[in-house]
Amino acid sequence: MSDPFVVVGGDAAGLSAASKCRRTAPDRDVVVFEKGQWISYAHCGTPYFVKGEVERLEHLLSLSPAAVEERGIDLRRGHEVVAVDTDARTVTVESADGRFEQPYGDLLVATGARAISDPIDGASLDSVFTLHGLDHAAAIRSYLTPPEEFDPADLGGGEARPNAVVERYGAMTPPETVAVVGAGYVGVEMAEAFEAWDLDVHLFQRTGYPVPGFGDAVGETVAEHLRETGVTLHLDEEVVELRGEDGHVSAVVCESGSTLDVDAALVGIGIRPNAELLDETPVERGASGAIATDSHGRTSVEGVYAAGDVAEMKHAVTGEPTWDPLGLPANRAGRAIGATVGGDPTPVGDVAGTAMVKAFDLEAGRAGLLDEERARDAGFDPVSKTITAGSRSGYYPGAAETTVTLTADRETGRLLGGSIVGADRAAIRIDTVATALGAELTVAELERQDLGYAPPFSPVWDPVLVAAKVLNGTLP
Amino acid sequence: MSDPFVVVGGDAAGLSAASKCRRTAPDRDVVVFEKGQWISYAHCGTPYFVKGEVERLEHLLSLSPAAVEERGIDLRRGHEVVAVDTDARTVTVESADGRFEQPYGDLLVATGARAISDPIDGASLDSVFTLHGLDHAAAIRSYLTPPEEFDPADLGGGEARPNAVVERYGAMTPPETVAVVGAGYVGVEMAEAFEAWDLDVHLFQRTGYPVPGFGDAVGETVAEHLRETGVTLHLDEEVVELRGEDGHVSAVVCESGSTLDVDAALVGIGIRPNAELLDETPVERGASGAIATDSHGRTSVEGVYAAGDVAEMKHAVTGEPTWDPLGLPANRAGRAIGATVGGDPTPVGDVAGTAMVKAFDLEAGRAGLLDEERARDAGFDPVSKTITAGSRSGYYPGAAETTVTLTADRETGRLLGGSIVGADRAAIRIDTVATALGAELTVAELERQDLGYAPPFSPVWDPVLVAAKVLNGTLP
Repeated sequence: MSDPFVVVGGDAAGLSAASKCRRTAPDRDVVVFEKGQWISYAHCGTPYFVKGEVERLEHLLSLSPAAVEERGIDLRRGHEVVAVDTDARTVTVESADGRFEQPYGDLLVATGARAISDPIDGASLDSVFTLHGLDHAAAIRSYLTPPEEFDPADLGGGEARPNAVVERYGAMTPPETVAVVGAGYVGVEMAEAFEAWDLDVHLFQRTGYPVPGFGDAVGETVAEHLRETGVTLHLDEEVVELRGEDGHVSAVVCESGSTLDVDAALVGIGIRPNAELLDETPVERGASGAIATDSHGRTSVEGVYAAGDVAEMKHAVTGEPTWDPLGLPANRAGRAIGATVGGDPTPVGDVAGTAMVKAFDLEAGRAGLLDEERARDAGFDPVSKTITAGSRSGYYPGAAETTVTLTADRETGRLLGGSIVGADRAAIRIDTVATALGAELTVAELERQDLGYAPPFSPVWDPVLVAAKVLNGTLP
Repeated sequence: MSDPFVVVGGDAAGLSAASKCRRTAPDRDVVVFEKGQWISYAHCGTPYFVKGEVERLEHLLSLSPAAVEERGIDLRRGHEVVAVDTDARTVTVESADGRFEQPYGDLLVATGARAISDPIDGASLDSVFTLHGLDHAAAIRSYLTPPEEFDPADLGGGEARPNAVVERYGAMTPPETVAVVGAGYVGVEMAEAFEAWDLDVHLFQRTGYPVPGFGDAVGETVAEHLRETGVTLHLDEEVVELRGEDGHVSAVVCESGSTLDVDAALVGIGIRPNAELLDETPVERGASGAIATDSHGRTSVEGVYAAGDVAEMKHAVTGEPTWDPLGLPANRAGRAIGATVGGDPTPVGDVAGTAMVKAFDLEAGRAGLLDEERARDAGFDPVSKTITAGSRSGYYPGAAETTVTLTADRETGRLLGGSIVGADRAAIRIDTVATALGAELTVAELERQDLGYAPPFSPVWDPVLVAAKVLNGTLP
């Protein structure tokens, strides 16, 4: 029997690959090493666990360890892969039981990414959090719960629950004022979660609008809505320090010199790929620092694959490598690699950077290239238009203003990217834009797509079509 | 100055064309003849006017006559075009002021369609309605309103309101039991409207499921939901006669022999193109009876265009002529023809037959070829799969079962059609399918589209992607 398919990381990409490989080649041995206790958890659901809309930690798990093992996968939690030898085709594994070498036939590195806080001084103070993983989410919700109501068992999570940290924060007086540093998706979603616990929420963003990846039109609308809900926005303010008293955060300090007293802080300024495992190997990294991969998720070294938040993929619009760590591409690439190593070569697909975010009662979506500088770097001559149109026929109750921005290449008319924001079915409409990007449509072609119309759901001209019509009208 | 652009019919296609022509060629004379008093009304909104969700008739008008005239369009309401002479390039017009000949440079026939009831005996009885136009809608709502609460002015509509019929029905005792004959969109939407007035609603459909154009999976789900809401379904029952007493409907009679006593009936069994105006001209009709047109909306006779419910267009999947009378293609074709006759040749685009319908709390969408026989006739070897998946991440409140059917060609894998039904953002997801059809994607390509993911709006694998994955897995 050949050496097994070894997977490093038991989350979306890793377990999708392991499962698909077992289905494609039922005789192939598959081993998954996960250094922590949690597997297959919904990272994007953690703000809603903190908020309390998702009640228990286990609700965020899409697969239990038992279900994984039923698929014939040899799952080893609490096992950290600390080295890879691509010549010998082995990995070195450490666990509570010691250290051993594991040979592999094919290797998938799916080690994900981690939240960063290092550009900010004082991030190791008490009551300063990042949000990456269930342990962080459990700690934050414990802190928000009044001690007299706190019971660790209410969090769920069984044996995997990190009891030490949870009990420590559960015993503390809940915070009253929180600084959310960084207004990307995590920041905006966490602002909503903190507001639900009646905190005084201050959201800091070093650029001029929240959710900068969604472009200015979305950012402006989201900013207005956040203010209406009671969040205090600090835009164009870069937090450089978290100041402490007795080891506990007490204030945020901005580069401008302004300070604000707080008793908790959530740092959501970005993530970094966990690619260091391959530092001593010839596996190449891309410009982003994430692992470079090809159309089938293969790295530069034979038999070594990478997928998920640790890997670059090909961008649907530029055709160049990009690092857009998002849930669907991780799952899709993992699944494709599982099929490939199982004997059914399957492309991982491209990424369009499609994303959606909920900001209280608003929904937003983005896809493709919105940043005109990035578009120019990719060789395009970008031109953008922003329109606002109704989400339903104007006479039908519930119609809501929907703002759409589309960007195209002036010469060819090719659609390059788009964003949408509104309160009624706005985010899901980005899928139309993403599909048009994936199919390499021009704006003129998008304008002629035969989309649906019914007064309760869409006006005759869907907002996406209105935007295409207006943008196309400006092209030569 | 050249002869004017003459438009017959003042609704979606006609006024889109007239407006776009004026914008494209501001010096060109444009004359629109409309035989009735209403222009530019939202046909698809009429069930919601009957229901009462849309309060006044004028709310359904997207353009007032004054707004049309401000665009420099010579609008003549109450003017019926009764003949066309394509050799002389004239139309014969009748109005209250007499009969005259109008020369044209270009002619657009946008005469729409009419609701049919003729296969059913007794359709001219009192309290038997079709729903096509604001006059019908006004009559039905007047009848549903108790006489002591009825005031014609509440309907709105100003001078265009048909007061004679409205006052006659407004004085009658409202019905208690209504038969809705035909469970297409109009039938299902009118069942919802009648239920809102607390009528005992009986919905008759000669096939096995409601909304037959949406396929069996949607039909089955809609049928179950209609029953839950209190509608009595009579499936596989063909109504052949409406029986009357003293000129008023009293019962429906089915081909099976079964009868039901009713005091009102709404017949929604289909529509027919108003193409007879061209009977004495060489303008060719298609197999459907609607007017044949080319990529730019031109008929077989130079200078004569047709658009909207009276015209065939090219099907996005088969590439063959099709008659799919729907709102967006009418607007789109009208607008394109207006640009073309204004000097900017613009294709009208293809139709994918994309449609959405609301059935109480359910939403459904359809696009492309769902009928396997029709797909085979078009030279495909269709294979279909139906899946049910969540509309959001399973742990997020409000996730609803969403059923998706996709059909593909077995040999090439090309996507041929799809349908969706569910209670949460289901209908709007058909736009993804419609765009994939318009771009001629294969199911494998659709499976790799980078759609959005956020727990409140979509699971990692959107239901459309789940369906693509499952269908693709069955293809060779």
